[in-house]
Amino acid sequence: MAVYTEVADEELAAFVARYDIGAVLAVKGIAEGVENSNFLLHTERGFYILTLYEKRVREEDLPFFIGLMRHLAQRGITCPQPVLNREGEALGRLAGRPAAIVTFLDGMWVKRPTAGHCAGVGEALARLHLAGADFAMRRENALSLPAWRPLFMQADGRADTVSPGLAARTLSALDDLERAWPAGLPGGVIHADLFPDNVFFISGRLSGLIDFYFACTDAFAYDLAICLNAWCFEADGSFNLTKGQAMLTAYERVRRLDDAEVAALPILCRGAALRFMLTRLVDWLNVPPGALVKPKDPLEYDRKLSFHRRVASAAEYGLAR
Amino acid sequence: MAVYTEVADEELAAFVARYDIGAVLAVKGIAEGVENSNFLLHTERGFYILTLYEKRVREEDLPFFIGLMRHLAQRGITCPQPVLNREGEALGRLAGRPAAIVTFLDGMWVKRPTAGHCAGVGEALARLHLAGADFAMRRENALSLPAWRPLFMQADGRADTVSPGLAARTLSALDDLERAWPAGLPGGVIHADLFPDNVFFISGRLSGLIDFYFACTDAFAYDLAICLNAWCFEADGSFNLTKGQAMLTAYERVRRLDDAEVAALPILCRGAALRFMLTRLVDWLNVPPGALVKPKDPLEYDRKLSFHRRVASAAEYGLAR
Repeated sequence: MAVYTEVADEELAAFVARYDIGAVLAVKGIAEGVENSNFLLHTERGFYILTLYEKRVREEDLPFFIGLMRHLAQRGITCPQPVLNREGEALGRLAGRPAAIVTFLDGMWVKRPTAGHCAGVGEALARLHLAGADFAMRRENALSLPAWRPLFMQADGRADTVSPGLAARTLSALDDLERAWPAGLPGGVIHADLFPDNVFFISGRLSGLIDFYFACTDAFAYDLAICLNAWCFEADGSFNLTKGQAMLTAYERVRRLDDAEVAALPILCRGAALRFMLTRLVDWLNVPPGALVKPKDPLEYDRKLSFHRRVASAAEYGLAR
Repeated sequence: MAVYTEVADEELAAFVARYDIGAVLAVKGIAEGVENSNFLLHTERGFYILTLYEKRVREEDLPFFIGLMRHLAQRGITCPQPVLNREGEALGRLAGRPAAIVTFLDGMWVKRPTAGHCAGVGEALARLHLAGADFAMRRENALSLPAWRPLFMQADGRADTVSPGLAARTLSALDDLERAWPAGLPGGVIHADLFPDNVFFISGRLSGLIDFYFACTDAFAYDLAICLNAWCFEADGSFNLTKGQAMLTAYERVRRLDDAEVAALPILCRGAALRFMLTRLVDWLNVPPGALVKPKDPLEYDRKLSFHRRVASAAEYGLAR
């Protein structure tokens, strides 16, 4: 839960006055989101979310994220829609931070996804990939292959304090991935963080996607690999093939993977597992004293990585060919 | 900020299904409220607040609080209105806790109250006192005079570690108050905690009162004394007579204080200051290691108490007679 910044009423009123959404009737901090401060905003025109972007989001990336949400919403992807102020701008400043007002998106994220939810995510991901095709902006994936070895270096020789052998396993995976990472796969805009807490459902139907603050330009199949990792494993670490089948079948109903993508899927899954293991490991080893947020377990992704290293083909994830 | 309890979606859906407010569309934890877990709840019928009552609220007191909010709302006091389920009940259980759904109340609390806000509070307090006159339930004030010496004993000889001389000052004030505490003043339902964060304003106009979880049956003028303490002092500890005048004049326009109340006001102000000093002192001395909530400064109320001990008559608070 997170509200990092307090906003003075007068400052808020002045900020909102630049928009055509009426006067502020209520504002309440939301105990959600790890990176930014989020507020429920009720104005004479309706309910909105006010986001203040905190340090971990780079300000120069915001036009990409905001532009992407507008682009996707215009193409039928349900996601928070940035509200433009009277000058036509979606980004302003409030309490010394970049700030945006977005539409309130209904739905709840599921704590225990079923195969049905996985199918919903697969379909939505493919639709997102297609909808992003004519988005003009580019953003490099700052957390792709070139970032992984430096991330591992940040773990600073302490990986084995988290789990014996973790350093050797990670280095071996890194070596393999650096040798074999695929290039030239079909790509474009990817979400890059489509975990269950970023997908809303209402009564079992996917109602929208949120949190585009890792979105970037990269291979579509890598985005799918992130989702397989995030959605299709059980709490005990086992891969649920039914969920994999559901996700991949639903994805392919909208956008069929080509042969190169199919062949690359196992290594992309290993890369995705390593990426989340590494960022979690760095966070885990750098918890500030008195931190309010419990870091996520890097070993969950170490175990997923081990699973993927034993996978020989995309069929083992449930891909029908 | 506070969301102490996580609620499973299925459990929430089952809980809400007992009400005639449609299906759940969204639920978000609110980073507000110190005692309970509060959620913004969007259903097919509108926006509500879902409150889960945590340990510090005694379950046997809830029917009083809930009944009072209904009573007051029916008499034109704008406050959260408990929603009844199909069995006509306002209180249910969710995630193992007593839970209620109340209407969403617009407005924002003011961080820097002006004399105009103090007038608004004075008027609303008097209207609340009149509106509560025919409320049938009673609840003793658990934090009135008889509770203060035991609270001081809980400070356990450590008061002077907070400020040299605090123990002696407090004991002397306690002795005086126990000797001279007034009885038989006009009374009824009081809010007993009408601090700025419990009063909502929209564009300078009072829009509603919240947080009735200290409400009880006690002297009306004691409630006013709590408000004088909470609203009419400046950050530097000085009493702002203009604010006092505004509050008292606005109160008396709705409900005139009788001679006994006027005479008792200085000692009631001392009692109110001591009550908040003591609960803050106990909290201050008992902060659990790693606590997320910073305790409030008891010495703010020690200084207010010293001010009140030099007050000879209600005129010094701005009461015109």
